[in-house]
Amino acid sequence: MIRPIEWIGDEQGFLRLLDQTRLPLETSFVDCRTVSDVWHAIRRLRVRGAPAIGVSAAYGLLLGVAGLLSAPRAKFDQELAASADELATSRPTAVNLFWALDRMRNAAAGVPGLTSRECLARLFDEARGIEREDREMCAAIGRNGAPLIAHAQGVLTHCNAGALATAGDGTALAVIFEAVRRGQKLSVYADETRPLWQGARLTAWELTQREIPCTVICDNTAGWIMRQGRVQAVVVGADRIAANGDAANKIGTYSVAVLAKAHDIPFYVAAPTSTFDLALENGEQIPIEERSPDEVVRPAGITIAPEKAGVFSPAFDVTPAALITAIVTERGVISPVSRQSVADVAGPVAAAVPDRPAGGGPPR
Amino acid sequence: MIRPIEWIGDEQGFLRLLDQTRLPLETSFVDCRTVSDVWHAIRRLRVRGAPAIGVSAAYGLLLGVAGLLSAPRAKFDQELAASADELATSRPTAVNLFWALDRMRNAAAGVPGLTSRECLARLFDEARGIEREDREMCAAIGRNGAPLIAHAQGVLTHCNAGALATAGDGTALAVIFEAVRRGQKLSVYADETRPLWQGARLTAWELTQREIPCTVICDNTAGWIMRQGRVQAVVVGADRIAANGDAANKIGTYSVAVLAKAHDIPFYVAAPTSTFDLALENGEQIPIEERSPDEVVRPAGITIAPEKAGVFSPAFDVTPAALITAIVTERGVISPVSRQSVADVAGPVAAAVPDRPAGGGPPR
Repeated sequence: MIRPIEWIGDEQGFLRLLDQTRLPLETSFVDCRTVSDVWHAIRRLRVRGAPAIGVSAAYGLLLGVAGLLSAPRAKFDQELAASADELATSRPTAVNLFWALDRMRNAAAGVPGLTSRECLARLFDEARGIEREDREMCAAIGRNGAPLIAHAQGVLTHCNAGALATAGDGTALAVIFEAVRRGQKLSVYADETRPLWQGARLTAWELTQREIPCTVICDNTAGWIMRQGRVQAVVVGADRIAANGDAANKIGTYSVAVLAKAHDIPFYVAAPTSTFDLALENGEQIPIEERSPDEVVRPAGITIAPEKAGVFSPAFDVTPAALITAIVTERGVISPVSRQSVADVAGPVAAAVPDRPAGGGPPR
Repeated sequence: MIRPIEWIGDEQGFLRLLDQTRLPLETSFVDCRTVSDVWHAIRRLRVRGAPAIGVSAAYGLLLGVAGLLSAPRAKFDQELAASADELATSRPTAVNLFWALDRMRNAAAGVPGLTSRECLARLFDEARGIEREDREMCAAIGRNGAPLIAHAQGVLTHCNAGALATAGDGTALAVIFEAVRRGQKLSVYADETRPLWQGARLTAWELTQREIPCTVICDNTAGWIMRQGRVQAVVVGADRIAANGDAANKIGTYSVAVLAKAHDIPFYVAAPTSTFDLALENGEQIPIEERSPDEVVRPAGITIAPEKAGVFSPAFDVTPAALITAIVTERGVISPVSRQSVADVAGPVAAAVPDRPAGGGPPR
């Protein structure tokens, strides 16, 4: 099994990332030995997917301070803060990045009496904890979500919310993997996901690796396969979810959600509670990254539009809660999606509640 | 002004086509001197767009019989029929192809007493007539459609239904060009139109050539720009329209129509009456061409999906009449779209009615 994110060695080790920009043709890795290496890997999408960005950033912080074992704590803390600030600028939308950096900072800040060496050990534990929890979170999302798609022969997904996007089995794809594990026959339609083709390159790669039937379609074909009755459910991931349930995800998700609604097909968002940003009232407050026009009009190095044409290339869009049938988290299923149901499951109080059955039926 | 379709010389001349697969980087032409040349040009999309395919096929027929000036009529007619049969297999969906071939066959069949030379002259006249009428048709569609988008600051279009798709100014783009000619300030959003990028390559090229503000978006961004209030109308072309108004057009058109409906944005189809196939009860009877998976998963020669992944690549989809606000033809505007209103405007009786005002307001 290929590990997209792997910390090699002890707390003074390095971060090995599967270079997702080279898939599906090439399975190559980049070794990150500095904060800057991690920053670039995130920025250039060598690692992507909200949970995977969080885990990578957590490990990335270690690289900023690993050389300061004998330094005074003040110097160590200063460097830690600088590294966190740097990593926070890598990408703006996925909140898991900031969530992971905050967790790491808190792990260090909580214990001022420690030496730098002890503090690094603590940070290493925290990063490993974030990774381990991410893996468990994926499994729980799979268990909670699988009953929701038990009726489906065909499922549509957009972008990649699979093992490549997390430290575990993914979010949206974890639901599909779990359904297949339970014996369900499923055919998965993967939106190619322009401009960077994460659906064709990554989701189709993950599915074919696991020998799950998978059909790649152009993004513009999603409505037509719904019309033809080829899919009975849509499952996608998320990069940030506001307190009211509005969910930011890869550009095109909103269109798919509107299309699903028009065809009476349930639309599920699968995401860990770390993807919720309860400080935001609604989706309008989610910052949306705009990426280079070249990603749209110079795919694979060829030029497909005249120089003088403008380009609008948001990396994400926001799907309003009203279009989301349910949000599947590791703690349970949020459905119907409302400010209250979001608070119940993803809010700080609910944090103490252990794993519980999905709204769509008990996990087997 | 570049002419995408040009017959060079007298009735024994040849057909010069702008090679649309090379745009926008290269303006090169292919000279067709045999029926097979035209067949390949249509099949490989060097010329595309329903009306342009019709005009090209009409001229293409001349190439099949131009060498038979001294042959007996029976031999001439036999070759004409064989050439028509061959060209009819080039692409299945656009009905203008069959319509133009029928017109040519009828032009020859109507007068059995003529010599082969006289018959060729007649066919040449007919082909030139089809081209001239196509040009006039574009102008009339522009006049009839412009009032419908007079309220819009932003218009979305999908694929290319412009000068490159016709012998004139286009269908959907003729409406936009006429609105701009009337002084309207318009910003046009062009769906890139995967898999072959006709929106980015061709529509953006036509618009920038005419200095009309144009923004290329990925197909999956159409819903998001509607949500943001950036467009107040959608205008697209069509490849075949059934008797009830269901319209086949480039894959992705159906999704755009559903999205437009969900956002209360009017959705207009612009097409000549030659695009109607009144023999078909509804859109389910329209044959949909499926093209090579390579167009989807090997764009520009690079491979974006694993070998084992399936691909579903219909070239067209069908938008049901209920989602179409109006169909703009050269004879007038069909709105609301129903079997009756289609028959009134595009039916054989209406054929005798001269150019008449658009339903959306009188042409200026």
